[in-house]
Amino acid sequence: MKWEENVRRVIPYVPGEQPNQPDMIKLNTNECPYPPAPGVQAAIEALRPQDLRLYPDPGAETLTRELADYYGVKKEQVFVGVGSDDVLAMAFLTFFNGDRPILFPDVTYSFYDVWAQLYRIPYETCPLDETFHIRPEDYRRPNGGVIFPNPNAPTGIYEPLKVVEEILQANRDVVVIVDEAYIDFGGKCALPLIQKYDNLLVVQTFSKSRAMAGLRVGFAMGSEKLIRYLSDVKFSFNSYTINRPTLALGVEALRDEAYFREITGRIVATRERVKRALRELGFVFPDSMANFIFASHERIPAQQIFQALKERNIYVRHWDRPRIRNFLRITIGTDEEMDILLAFLGEYIRERT
Amino acid sequence: MKWEENVRRVIPYVPGEQPNQPDMIKLNTNECPYPPAPGVQAAIEALRPQDLRLYPDPGAETLTRELADYYGVKKEQVFVGVGSDDVLAMAFLTFFNGDRPILFPDVTYSFYDVWAQLYRIPYETCPLDETFHIRPEDYRRPNGGVIFPNPNAPTGIYEPLKVVEEILQANRDVVVIVDEAYIDFGGKCALPLIQKYDNLLVVQTFSKSRAMAGLRVGFAMGSEKLIRYLSDVKFSFNSYTINRPTLALGVEALRDEAYFREITGRIVATRERVKRALRELGFVFPDSMANFIFASHERIPAQQIFQALKERNIYVRHWDRPRIRNFLRITIGTDEEMDILLAFLGEYIRERT
Repeated sequence: MKWEENVRRVIPYVPGEQPNQPDMIKLNTNECPYPPAPGVQAAIEALRPQDLRLYPDPGAETLTRELADYYGVKKEQVFVGVGSDDVLAMAFLTFFNGDRPILFPDVTYSFYDVWAQLYRIPYETCPLDETFHIRPEDYRRPNGGVIFPNPNAPTGIYEPLKVVEEILQANRDVVVIVDEAYIDFGGKCALPLIQKYDNLLVVQTFSKSRAMAGLRVGFAMGSEKLIRYLSDVKFSFNSYTINRPTLALGVEALRDEAYFREITGRIVATRERVKRALRELGFVFPDSMANFIFASHERIPAQQIFQALKERNIYVRHWDRPRIRNFLRITIGTDEEMDILLAFLGEYIRERT
Repeated sequence: MKWEENVRRVIPYVPGEQPNQPDMIKLNTNECPYPPAPGVQAAIEALRPQDLRLYPDPGAETLTRELADYYGVKKEQVFVGVGSDDVLAMAFLTFFNGDRPILFPDVTYSFYDVWAQLYRIPYETCPLDETFHIRPEDYRRPNGGVIFPNPNAPTGIYEPLKVVEEILQANRDVVVIVDEAYIDFGGKCALPLIQKYDNLLVVQTFSKSRAMAGLRVGFAMGSEKLIRYLSDVKFSFNSYTINRPTLALGVEALRDEAYFREITGRIVATRERVKRALRELGFVFPDSMANFIFASHERIPAQQIFQALKERNIYVRHWDRPRIRNFLRITIGTDEEMDILLAFLGEYIRERT
């Protein structure tokens, strides 16, 4: 059809499998195994149907203010979106608008090249070193912007803030985005650096450490100028993105610090225990600071283990891509879930030795 | 700062005032004066905090299927977004990707030129005739796509489907979007035309007739091909846009047809009564088929009436723009609200005669 000539064609992004079977163990999308803060129940009960007839606050004021207070910044330094994917997509559209290629690691969050293609942003990838670490010197060449996750996905590797700052120092003339979806599992947030670098955007999410993937809340923090540019584009796209239930329930994720520390602490403890157990089973992996482990077995191909786990109703993530096809990304679930995984893997590997 | 050179600059869109005062009468954003369907309360009570830890279904299956059943189309012909603004912004990005200017009326929904500017889409506006009607012959020239609301906003004028089809017949080689945000207040939906025109996208929303502006649900219907292109772009932007509470509460808007007919019928009845009363007070206006009236007074400037109403805590909408600066857009509220408005206007106008 002739009308198709004007259509923007993209390689359709296929989101990870979201199986929904009773008794399955779902370790494939880095969700939190624990429920969100207990205050959410009361917030649900307080929702009134009649309020839904009215538009939500376009500035998402309650949530923005709560985030600003929590992180000790001004509310003009906070931007809220429909998950960090929404925030990042807006940031790509807003900040990566030059002619030079933007830079990100070759092994990284799989949406970066998708957004670049969607918005026709030229990009180049910088290969991680053989231990999957970022080489800061790669980010010294002329570019149109820089983005990387810290900890990186799907490796789980955390780069200390001095590496982040090294990249920032070499990139004062472009926007640098640090995607901190997994920062709450042991890493140090780059937020203090925004006082020194007005071109640094720090992006986080409620989907992992705050147990609210189903609510879709992500946020960015940076200089007031940076946030204003981002908001201008967002308001040119859709004024009312954060709905009323999200505003009401979202704030609860920030109000119960004790609960937050408890669940993130528990996930970290489970992770460290699972690391030891996996090592004993012959797995190798980078030292993850995220809520997942990116593991490869010394003898059995990842694809085979992936299939075997799936048949046992245990879902992990596997990509058939260069450099990482022999790895499985295993989300840290509850201790019970991880025990079932480890027991199965123990038996499965023993049978093949 | 040098990094600002790469920033996409847009003229920031300013959403309409959302005042929030006790006792105010809010007739400025075309919200529904009645609460959403009674089933929403039960859906709220059924929300379980622990489900929020999991991502929502990226395909928004439950809602998509409910819409498909309701409108008698396949689910592959339905696309759901975060309000119709999200759907329309995605549609602009997907379908208006050619070099020729897209066409829309000069007096219309104020977001069209904002999206065109955001995505650098060339556009030309076609002046409505002196009675604010669309002139279908204006849409016969070469273009990159066509969009118009039916009924139009902020005029409220509905064009019969033969006018819509006349525009479609002249535009087989581009995508034509009919924005039907206000269709449920007396107009006839263009949906049957999608069988004949695979380039027709019909967009609707839950924000007006379904009393759920606060939930952010919009949707598009069209040929499977059209919807697939739109979905491909959407999945390249953000896989998980519709959150779990929205999926759970949204379906309720479609399940209670009797309630839907009752509230839309009541709004239409109130509108017709208010038309008669406004006419007696010396107002003139196009014959609205929407949930608002776009009225001008024969003697008193709109800006003055707007201010007087505001001081009385009654909010309507006024734009200081060519052709429409002497008009007020008055949302149809409850009968009680409209009586207060009419009583005030009666007195206000009498004092000035």
